[in-house]
Amino acid sequence: MSGSQTAPWDDAARQLRIDLVRATASSGSGHPTSGASAADLLAVLGASHFHLDIADPRHPGNDRFVLSKGHAASALYAWLKLLGAIDDEELLTYATPGSRLEGHPRPVLPWVDVATGSLGQGIAAGVGLALSLARLEHSPARVFVLCGDSEMAEGSVWEAFDHASHYGLGNLIALIDVNGLGQRGPTALGHETAAYARRAEAFGWQALEIDGHDHEQIDAALRLATATSDRPSVIVARTEKGHRLGSVAGLDGWHGRPLTDADEALEGLGSHPGLVLAPRPPFDVPQRRSERREIALPAYPVGGSVATRLAYGEALVAVGDARDDVVVLDAETGNSTHAELFAKAHPDRFFEMFIAEQQMLGAAVGLAARGWTPFTSTFAAFTTRAFDFVRMAAIGGTAVRLCGSHSGLSVGESGASGMALEDVACFRTIANSVVLQPCDGNQAAALVATAADLDQFVYLRTSRNPVPVIYQPAETFAVGGSRVLASAPDDVATVVASGIVVHAALEARGLLRDEGLSLRVVDAYSIKPIDAETLLKAADETDLVVTVEDHYAEGGLGSAVAEVLAEAGSGTRLVRHAVREIPTSGKVAVLYGAAGLDGKGIAAVVRTALRDRSPEPVGGPSPAG
Amino acid sequence: MSGSQTAPWDDAARQLRIDLVRATASSGSGHPTSGASAADLLAVLGASHFHLDIADPRHPGNDRFVLSKGHAASALYAWLKLLGAIDDEELLTYATPGSRLEGHPRPVLPWVDVATGSLGQGIAAGVGLALSLARLEHSPARVFVLCGDSEMAEGSVWEAFDHASHYGLGNLIALIDVNGLGQRGPTALGHETAAYARRAEAFGWQALEIDGHDHEQIDAALRLATATSDRPSVIVARTEKGHRLGSVAGLDGWHGRPLTDADEALEGLGSHPGLVLAPRPPFDVPQRRSERREIALPAYPVGGSVATRLAYGEALVAVGDARDDVVVLDAETGNSTHAELFAKAHPDRFFEMFIAEQQMLGAAVGLAARGWTPFTSTFAAFTTRAFDFVRMAAIGGTAVRLCGSHSGLSVGESGASGMALEDVACFRTIANSVVLQPCDGNQAAALVATAADLDQFVYLRTSRNPVPVIYQPAETFAVGGSRVLASAPDDVATVVASGIVVHAALEARGLLRDEGLSLRVVDAYSIKPIDAETLLKAADETDLVVTVEDHYAEGGLGSAVAEVLAEAGSGTRLVRHAVREIPTSGKVAVLYGAAGLDGKGIAAVVRTALRDRSPEPVGGPSPAG
Repeated sequence: MSGSQTAPWDDAARQLRIDLVRATASSGSGHPTSGASAADLLAVLGASHFHLDIADPRHPGNDRFVLSKGHAASALYAWLKLLGAIDDEELLTYATPGSRLEGHPRPVLPWVDVATGSLGQGIAAGVGLALSLARLEHSPARVFVLCGDSEMAEGSVWEAFDHASHYGLGNLIALIDVNGLGQRGPTALGHETAAYARRAEAFGWQALEIDGHDHEQIDAALRLATATSDRPSVIVARTEKGHRLGSVAGLDGWHGRPLTDADEALEGLGSHPGLVLAPRPPFDVPQRRSERREIALPAYPVGGSVATRLAYGEALVAVGDARDDVVVLDAETGNSTHAELFAKAHPDRFFEMFIAEQQMLGAAVGLAARGWTPFTSTFAAFTTRAFDFVRMAAIGGTAVRLCGSHSGLSVGESGASGMALEDVACFRTIANSVVLQPCDGNQAAALVATAADLDQFVYLRTSRNPVPVIYQPAETFAVGGSRVLASAPDDVATVVASGIVVHAALEARGLLRDEGLSLRVVDAYSIKPIDAETLLKAADETDLVVTVEDHYAEGGLGSAVAEVLAEAGSGTRLVRHAVREIPTSGKVAVLYGAAGLDGKGIAAVVRTALRDRSPEPVGGPSPAG
Repeated sequence: MSGSQTAPWDDAARQLRIDLVRATASSGSGHPTSGASAADLLAVLGASHFHLDIADPRHPGNDRFVLSKGHAASALYAWLKLLGAIDDEELLTYATPGSRLEGHPRPVLPWVDVATGSLGQGIAAGVGLALSLARLEHSPARVFVLCGDSEMAEGSVWEAFDHASHYGLGNLIALIDVNGLGQRGPTALGHETAAYARRAEAFGWQALEIDGHDHEQIDAALRLATATSDRPSVIVARTEKGHRLGSVAGLDGWHGRPLTDADEALEGLGSHPGLVLAPRPPFDVPQRRSERREIALPAYPVGGSVATRLAYGEALVAVGDARDDVVVLDAETGNSTHAELFAKAHPDRFFEMFIAEQQMLGAAVGLAARGWTPFTSTFAAFTTRAFDFVRMAAIGGTAVRLCGSHSGLSVGESGASGMALEDVACFRTIANSVVLQPCDGNQAAALVATAADLDQFVYLRTSRNPVPVIYQPAETFAVGGSRVLASAPDDVATVVASGIVVHAALEARGLLRDEGLSLRVVDAYSIKPIDAETLLKAADETDLVVTVEDHYAEGGLGSAVAEVLAEAGSGTRLVRHAVREIPTSGKVAVLYGAAGLDGKGIAAVVRTALRDRSPEPVGGPSPAG
């Protein structure tokens, strides 16, 4: 299974160090000392263990490599050059605009599966890759994850250790590069490799402690790890930061800095071996072919009622029936988010992530990197726990979907800790994200099907309690669209709402009609992108725009509408009606009433705003249009 | 040290179960089965081990209790009634508006230190409380944290275990209520108490496995744990969910639901003992008196240059010199954020949190709950990792401060993973938050001093590279204020900027002046609250407002300004100039140039926007005002 003593490990390691010094020197940036500590691990892995068809990076028989310590990117690029994936000219483009070799790895380079650079995330994605290979692709290929020792302080790493053993991922092999030095000095555990090993073992892993610069020991550990199939393995490698890089070897104070004297280091390393080592061939696994049939979404009769979270679950099943690439993960809330319906219908494509939102997103990223279409879900209040994983997914261009249920005040008695009132703001700021909030069951179902087709991060916000069905089952809802639910030539104001408060807006319309005030109601189910055209038309045709949201006032729907109106120079006044104080516990209806987010409250806001109109067009509260 | 066999443990436990059933039945909500599994632990703790002066909840000699499994709030309230802190009438107000007994605990109740309800956070706060007692208050009091078993899946829990042993917190005692059932079914580890114990031991804790319904075993474990001073202890208690609650005992499917037949459960529990047990008296510790002297902030000469992150570090030292209540935590980035200056000046009040942002915020919350004034810091890109901890701090009304350094594109070659382009949006949506971004050293220093005085969450955003000093050392900067840096009667447009791009805005002003276009420049250092008055005056007096931010376009400064203009019905057009694409790696100046965030780019945006003015006042791109 492995290389022999004639394997060119020494030459390979030397070349890796030479090339990572050259790459970082050429860019004047990077982390050469963090790469040098891992060079021997990479040399033996690449020369003797790694299966890869360079020409077919997505081959299901390829081993996967994740650089969880993404700052050692120069070592990864040197390694990819060693394996023949990139050439020397490209190596020296490291960290320059337009290069595929970014300062931290991104999947713009086809042999990189996931973006890394925010620590403690690569191993979480590795769990997703390993789940894909072992459970879905039935491939004997392995996932190797190179971790730094500093990042072992991130709790997300232990979520990954926990889940990898829970799922018996014998195909997952982590290597911890224990160089003992973080960015600002010694790590908490220094070179105590035994402490890392004990922790890993307690989490159900096989742990192998080695000298990370002894090629024989590295090879033996990799042999044992790849021969162990019942549980994941971790190789805890004692290393030296900057190993063999001349005078900086083992020194503190050299994190994240190119060498000031690269020539000295290069001189000490000797001549460039000019090696290109063909990796071992990929395992023989057939390419998976995805099947797609027509989706038979659930249909809810208009006039009935259903919770959008239930529609989410039922639509997931339908989408999963039609598409065998859809996989679902949930953070031990499946009976609330209704992801459990999918778990029952497609148990082989459902992964319970327990209460570990970061790992849930990390696994989804790994699964998406293998071509799956993952949906993840939990209570909306806890979705932001995984914010940085979503951020990194977006940076990697990896499409994952996240559904937050029980949004806003609807958790009632549970109180503020369970209320998501910040989630829309958080996910709206994610690069290239789509944020959708349905207000009825048929819309929710349609948006689930839409989300499956989108190639970017999608946040879907559902609600706890049944709400009236107002749309026909057959209706479609474009991303970036909206629905004008009520409109008349004499409309004096427009209410723009999203999610369950749409129904309160319709109620407000009824109340105000009795007073002779006609209200336009727009269902802005697509919060990002937002339907600017419809909003500007409404601003043009009515005297006032009121946004209504079950969310705090900053960053959500109200801000999205404000951006549109202000950018267009619309003089029509906006009132952002939102949750303005930290809510208490209480009955759901009482809380919505207290926040003015029921029909009565919305009507009052509209009435007051129309009354407050002042004659001054600019410089204070004023109407226009 | 402990109660005897005559201690009324049985009666106390029975009373706790009766009262938690009554409280949840009265509210028709809550988690009685999650409380019942922990009732015996609480009974023995309260009857025989817990030191507390009910009348003086903040006494430094009081033990602290944190309900990390916040959903068992009814058990906590029953326990506080048992100890004489609240009466029966208040108990039955559980989860109703206006009650101090919220669905999940909040510090509106004076015996509650921190808000819980988002899992895995109570123990992180417990680390902060224990650090305060052991390291800062020199109190022998202990911190007891009751954890659920489901929440052990959260990585943040293991960050807490890691830090508690690193700091040798022998005064921290965790109790894990291993009832084996999460909200949607069995937990990953079920009743494998040995697995929890192994993990805790591997993280350096003493672990004691017991039957969590055997009062003698609980007492013995608490004796041993409280007698162990060299490391934290965890009592891993095997329990039954819904223990003794009639027919629901041990059943799945009863999470988060009040009993449908409370009477049956109450009948089975027997008569109410009507106990009130005086807790043990507080330890004899003197009250700390905080000292405050005048703050001698660093002073940077106008015309020189300094990085705002360095000013942060130097100002922290000054504030720490003047106020002995200021404590600082950093996530192993102190040499970059410059928090290490404080570490050197005040080593006893600095806590290295390694790369564990969640634990950093959790510890800060615990420290703040003991009256300290914590500042935390890391790279801005990684601040959002702790978003949910900030959310919970805000819900608890606990004042913590977070400084994100190296914001925006300024990390250059590192690439997108290290660039914070979402942080302002995230922290602006936090309830009652303040978001500040200084553009020079004196402003940064002044805002650090201001942040120390604020009683809410403050996010301070600093930058990597030196920038010109433009403000006098003596200047003060009010929260909610701004500075008009350039203004003339013939201004045609206003640029609103914040942080380092303020200097680019001033440069753009110079470029446009040469073309005969006069530009107003506003430094909006206070992003939340924002200075609406100055903005509306500018919108009134100029034809165009351009916001400039080193951040994505959604939710940040541009949105804040859009909200002001739209709410006022200003017809002046807004252009939100922000980062619109995921950046690549590259030299800092190249990246700012590519994003149009240098003087030339801003001038071009202003020029184009002025040229694009159309005559239509509403319904499309247009000027007004």
